[in-house]
Order: sequence, then structure tokens, then C-alpha cells
Amino acid sequence: MKRILLTISYDGTAYHGWQIQPNGITVQQVLQESLQKLLGKFTGVTGCSRTDAGVHANEFCCHLDCDENIPDTAFLRGLNSFLPSDIAVKACKEVSPDFHARYNAKGKTYVYKILNGGIKDPFLSRYVWNIERKLDTDKMNEFCKRTVGTHDFYAFSSSGRTVEDTVRTVSECYTERNGDLVTLTVTANGFLYNMVRIIVGTAVEVSDGRIDPLSTEDMFVKKDRELAGITAPPMGLILQKVHY
Amino acid sequence: MKRILLTISYDGTAYHGWQIQPNGITVQQVLQESLQKLLGKFTGVTGCSRTDAGVHANEFCCHLDCDENIPDTAFLRGLNSFLPSDIAVKACKEVSPDFHARYNAKGKTYVYKILNGGIKDPFLSRYVWNIERKLDTDKMNEFCKRTVGTHDFYAFSSSGRTVEDTVRTVSECYTERNGDLVTLTVTANGFLYNMVRIIVGTAVEVSDGRIDPLSTEDMFVKKDRELAGITAPPMGLILQKVHY
Repeated sequence: MKRILLTISYDGTAYHGWQIQPNGITVQQVLQESLQKLLGKFTGVTGCSRTDAGVHANEFCCHLDCDENIPDTAFLRGLNSFLPSDIAVKACKEVSPDFHARYNAKGKTYVYKILNGGIKDPFLSRYVWNIERKLDTDKMNEFCKRTVGTHDFYAFSSSGRTVEDTVRTVSECYTERNGDLVTLTVTANGFLYNMVRIIVGTAVEVSDGRIDPLSTEDMFVKKDRELAGITAPPMGLILQKVHY
Repeated sequence: MKRILLTISYDGTAYHGWQIQPNGITVQQVLQESLQKLLGKFTGVTGCSRTDAGVHANEFCCHLDCDENIPDTAFLRGLNSFLPSDIAVKACKEVSPDFHARYNAKGKTYVYKILNGGIKDPFLSRYVWNIERKLDTDKMNEFCKRTVGTHDFYAFSSSGRTVEDTVRTVSECYTERNGDLVTLTVTANGFLYNMVRIIVGTAVEVSDGRIDPLSTEDMFVKKDRELAGITAPPMGLILQKVHY
């Protein structure tokens, strides 16, 4: 038996997130079905995290155990041939039997994309939040920089959260503009349910003047979801990288 | 009454081409429905050409007549707000009453994209033909350069063609590689049904060694569809520009 680490990329538009659930098709389900076609038997995969419905991944990692001695390249090519066009295996390598895609992850980087100030773009619409009014990235960064550090992000999580401990360490959080594309990048040791999307919604409301960035500390201390901003829509979000 | 020229951009994945037809949703239909919402009455649009089901457009042009004196910017913003996310109006301007989107077009440029040699990309899959075996763009250009000039492109059209005259003048046709992306660009004064897709399919078969580029002249003279190559799939094709 060997343990294999898969790095996959997917357009999440058509999926109800990563994790298998009864009410919709998920990436994990489609991946396991393709593995069954490749290996001839059920093979479970363990992901590095969940992603929400409609959220994308540039590099999502998951592990599986496999009895067959298939070379990595053949495994990658074979699995890609069974997967639909919106999911691709980018890399495949053997790891030690005690490696775990979730527990070994030291952190993750998410990127959120906003198309801002220009006319809408039919070729980007699946991957951006389209906002016509001009965003002020300096103001957004006044909020972003205050999220860096170890804080209780309870106010930045939705009621669907499944964990007790809501303290996380954000190592970077910043907004950049490149023409009409505004991106918010955030790296942390872990993320609560909807945490990135609420950080983005808050940054946008700071830009709009509805939230004062000086109130960020209050959000951490008072742990009140009402103090933070709206939850940004899912299509702008992409899991950029998992750090091991 | 004023005549308005619209430049629109669309992701054709969900549409049965431009032109209204009984058996599927088309871009023209959705555009006319959005115009009805904007203007409060039926307003027909005349396109510069048809595009096939699944084909995209960077700059598709169409004209319409409008009684209301709506400023161009308001017209553009208003219409975009009614259009779905995969269709966008990029520009809107008044033209002379005798301007015609189809008859005034001097030519059109199409670009066909092939993702070649790398691993499939979920974020490009709607916009490229994925070919894993390595393509030889020098060989492809041996065919492409022979299509330049005035020829009878009968062999490069499908049975669905609706015109008698199958002679067209190609002013440029070439293939380029940029990393894993191979593009074929072709400009002509007009195109037959499926003409670009058959040119691309032929270029790929020349690269594969199944078709000799020296037989191109034969294709023009013998007017035999069987001599040309396969019809490339629609998703790689985009109408890049209409020349007036």
C-alpha cells in the first residue's frame, strides 16, 4: 500500500463545494467516482479542507491510499482522462504513510478577485465579483492590515461553523489593484466557515465608508457577526495554495 | 429614429449560436429580450454574421433602430444590467441610418485556441480545444500560408452552408505557440459555415502527418470536403474582430 498526495485544480461553479453531501454533486464525489473507474474499486480521498459551493481551487490537496503500484505519471494521466473538464489533477506523488492532507497543512492562501470599475466581462464572470462603483484599495488595506496576527475570528464566521476554537493566525492580508482587477490575498494557519468571504465583504464595506476600519479590534473582542461586513459571493474566491 | 451599433462580447458555451432558432436559446434572442425590458417594446437586432453553437465572441457587432433618445452610456449600462453574465455590451454608438452590421463588414478575424502539451486546465476548458500530443506549428503554417489568397473554399464548408458562392479571400492565416497555448488566427472577407473549424482541423491533421500540405491546392480545385480535415470542436473558436 502506498499513500498518494494529489494536487488538483477545479472550477467550482458546478459543484456544491468539496465535501460529499446528500443534496448536490461535490468535487470529492466526482473525484472518488473517477478513482473507482481507474482502480476498479472504491477509494476514499481526504481533503486538506472544505471549500464552499461555487468556490474554485488552483491547488487543492488531498491524499488517498492505493494498493496498486501505478507510476505517478500514469496515475495522473489516467485519472485526468476520467475526470470532467472542470477538474484536473495537476500533480501526483507518493508521500509517507503518516502524511495527512489536512493535519499536515501549516496554512493556506486564498485569493479573492473583484472586477471593478470596468464593463462586465463574460469570460471572467464565473471567477470574479463584479462591482461597478470604484473601490478604494488604500481604505481596504486599512482594514486588511488589522486582520494580520492572532485573533478570535468568531465575528468573521457564519452560523454553519463546526469548530469550537475560533482563534486563527493570519500571516498576510492585503488588497492590490491591477487595472480593473482588484484582488484580496489572505494567508492563515486555518480558516473558519466563510471567513475569507466575510473579510472581503468587510473590506468592501470599509471602502464604501459603511464600516470604520478602526472598529476591527471591536469585531475580534465583541465576537459579534453583526459588526463585520457582508459575506462576499462565492465565485470570486479561489484556494490558491496549501502550505505544508 | 436613430440607428445604433452595438459591440458585444459573449461566452457562447450556453448558446445555440447567434441567430434565433426554434430549438435552443441563442444570443440574438437573449439580446432582444433584454432590449424589450430596456425599451418596453420589441426591438430587432441584425448581426454581422452567425456564429455556431458554443462559439464565443470578443467583438460581435449588431445594429438596431431605436426611437428613444437614450444617451449611449445609459443605453450601454441599462442593457448590460438586463443581460446575463455571459453576454456583455462593450460599446454602443450611433451610426448613419444606412449602416448595416452585415453588409458594411469588410471582413472578420477569428482566433482558434488549442491547449497543447500540458495538463488540462479547468479554467480554460470552456475556451480551448485540449490536445495532448505535441503539435508542430511549422507544419501547421505550411498549410495555413496556402489558404491565403482568393480560393474556392467549398471543401472547407459543411453541408449546412446556405450560400451559392463559396469563393472567399483570406488575407491572413497563421499559427503561433505561446507556451502550451497554440493559436490559429485567420482573417477573411467572409466565412462559410464551419470554415474556420475545418481550417483548424486540417492544420492539426497536417501536423499529425495525415494530410500533406501540398494537397491544399487540390482541396480548392476538386471542391471535395473529404480532402480537407476534421471539423475542430466549437469551444476553441472566438470571433475576435469585425472589420468595417
